[in-house]
Amino acid sequence: MSRFLSSKYRDLEAYTPGEQPRDMKYIKLNTNESPYPPSKRVIDALSSDEVMKLNLYSDPTAKELKARIAELYGVESENVFVSNGSDDILNFSFMAFCEGDKTAVSFPEISYGFYSVYAELHGVKANVIPLKDDFSIDPCDYMKNDSTVVIANPNAPTGIALGLDDIEGIVKSNPDHLVLVDEAYVDFGAQSAIELTQKYSNLLVVCTFSKSRSLAGARLGFAIASKEIIADLEKIKYSTNPYNINRLSLIAGEMAILDNGYYMDNCKRIVETREYTQNALRKLGFYVTDSKANFIFAKSDKIGGEELYLKLKARGILIRHFSKEKIKDYNRITVGTKAEMDSLISAITEILKEL
Amino acid sequence: MSRFLSSKYRDLEAYTPGEQPRDMKYIKLNTNESPYPPSKRVIDALSSDEVMKLNLYSDPTAKELKARIAELYGVESENVFVSNGSDDILNFSFMAFCEGDKTAVSFPEISYGFYSVYAELHGVKANVIPLKDDFSIDPCDYMKNDSTVVIANPNAPTGIALGLDDIEGIVKSNPDHLVLVDEAYVDFGAQSAIELTQKYSNLLVVCTFSKSRSLAGARLGFAIASKEIIADLEKIKYSTNPYNINRLSLIAGEMAILDNGYYMDNCKRIVETREYTQNALRKLGFYVTDSKANFIFAKSDKIGGEELYLKLKARGILIRHFSKEKIKDYNRITVGTKAEMDSLISAITEILKEL
Repeated sequence: MSRFLSSKYRDLEAYTPGEQPRDMKYIKLNTNESPYPPSKRVIDALSSDEVMKLNLYSDPTAKELKARIAELYGVESENVFVSNGSDDILNFSFMAFCEGDKTAVSFPEISYGFYSVYAELHGVKANVIPLKDDFSIDPCDYMKNDSTVVIANPNAPTGIALGLDDIEGIVKSNPDHLVLVDEAYVDFGAQSAIELTQKYSNLLVVCTFSKSRSLAGARLGFAIASKEIIADLEKIKYSTNPYNINRLSLIAGEMAILDNGYYMDNCKRIVETREYTQNALRKLGFYVTDSKANFIFAKSDKIGGEELYLKLKARGILIRHFSKEKIKDYNRITVGTKAEMDSLISAITEILKEL
Repeated sequence: MSRFLSSKYRDLEAYTPGEQPRDMKYIKLNTNESPYPPSKRVIDALSSDEVMKLNLYSDPTAKELKARIAELYGVESENVFVSNGSDDILNFSFMAFCEGDKTAVSFPEISYGFYSVYAELHGVKANVIPLKDDFSIDPCDYMKNDSTVVIANPNAPTGIALGLDDIEGIVKSNPDHLVLVDEAYVDFGAQSAIELTQKYSNLLVVCTFSKSRSLAGARLGFAIASKEIIADLEKIKYSTNPYNINRLSLIAGEMAILDNGYYMDNCKRIVETREYTQNALRKLGFYVTDSKANFIFAKSDKIGGEELYLKLKARGILIRHFSKEKIKDYNRITVGTKAEMDSLISAITEILKEL
């Protein structure tokens, strides 16, 4: 820390992203990337002709990409915001829609780790609500609690989803507060609340191209809400970094929307592989949550979460372990290809035998 | 504006980026892009094999890119920060290194328009210091004025540079305050203060790949300072958007550093074209500042700044006009290729004849 750092940030604890080690080649099941490459249309579009144009700025209005997203989801371009990954949008939202001294923000105790970082970063009082004993969210906890509400659906790292009725109940009961639904993992089996943005002016749905659309490395997120909420997000973007999306990523995003079928087929495949792997883990004595995401959340009575993580890492397989007390027995395992999951199951079988 | 926007940002005025119209093909001399494409090594490296890997996150530590930058500038990797364009780094710096209620920030009245936006965004009191009558910065104005100091060198949109002695004087006289030198345009004829970061722990130099390195569309900026200042910037980055650089941009940046000669040759060419164009404008009766940047700042007694901008736009040539009172007679003209500048000079010659 330098002696120039503002007192506001001296105690701030930054987010810890999943490890990206480079010492050897791992089977990477730790950061919820898609195991499938971008579609052919994306690969063809990012030609050397386009790379040659990198001397020119990207379109800060992202006009074409917004039009494609609007078309796919049946909304207007003015209802669409795009930015440099959904983390960027979450950050802007905590900044824009939480009044530091008045409105607190409510989110689940076990959820995406960045929510508490954003709250601290922007000096927003966080109302952190425990999950139920089965790790599900109780919608009643988020009704009329006089604050901005942030919910990941499906939730991470549990993978458990709320139904659309429950989401609507939360939105409806908070007419004077913004409800942000983070749908990073929605394409793997949960119901999207995007259609509800047409009905409720207090709903903001945040999505990403990083998971179901195989573009984690391109940094592209989008959000859908009322024109007014989108205009607020644009104002924050134009006050920080208007050209924040790479030229090539704008094109990749457009092509990915046009190739929607390819990605939705991949999602089906990932769901099948998830169910297959969960069954195999259950047979090995694991408890797994009812995940609707592209990851599995599992624990075993035979081996601790951290121990399993370390033993798998030693065998070249990376999964994610969180040291938070309430979930320290669990691991979050990204659903890769069937071959990768077979390697995982074999490795776990061996590890359990050696105990 | 939605009813949910925090009161902090209701009166915020966002930055207005240069226009990127798509109604027709313009000669674009309005956003200070390089007229030259990225080098062959960049183009070859962004192959379809790399595009295929966009399903994977980028390395948030940007290890290889930092090592290349450190090598080129003779510093350690720990002295290097990289982020999504230099705007991103400027934003983080106003956030991290200005104490809202205590330390104000000082910057020139005529300079990069984003400084005042960042000050307002982060609630920092700005000490806005007028330029001298000849549009140069008086270094004495920035000595011992008890605040964080931000100076663009060369300054924008005037193009006028301070010498390294003057920069050192400012840094030396403010041992208890951070001095940020924004060197976006330094490669076109000014002296970089990077070597001074080894000597002064209060100096932060911010640079970009957007101008001299032909990567405006890739979104890549870097900064060099003491390890402690860099650690603070990392903390802010890891608390907002750790994966904020595209996978392909990391590679493009590495290759651009390896091809440094190509870019420095382009800079020489741009400097020659700048001098050529300035002479031609002087012959047409224009006053031009002594620009050390890749743009020209010029006015004519025969035609107003806005009128010239509009007449050139009608002829398919875009330049940048700022409506700020003190510079409204001027235009900022990016230095393009010699052929583009010849078109500009012909168009201006015709416009002046028609008056």
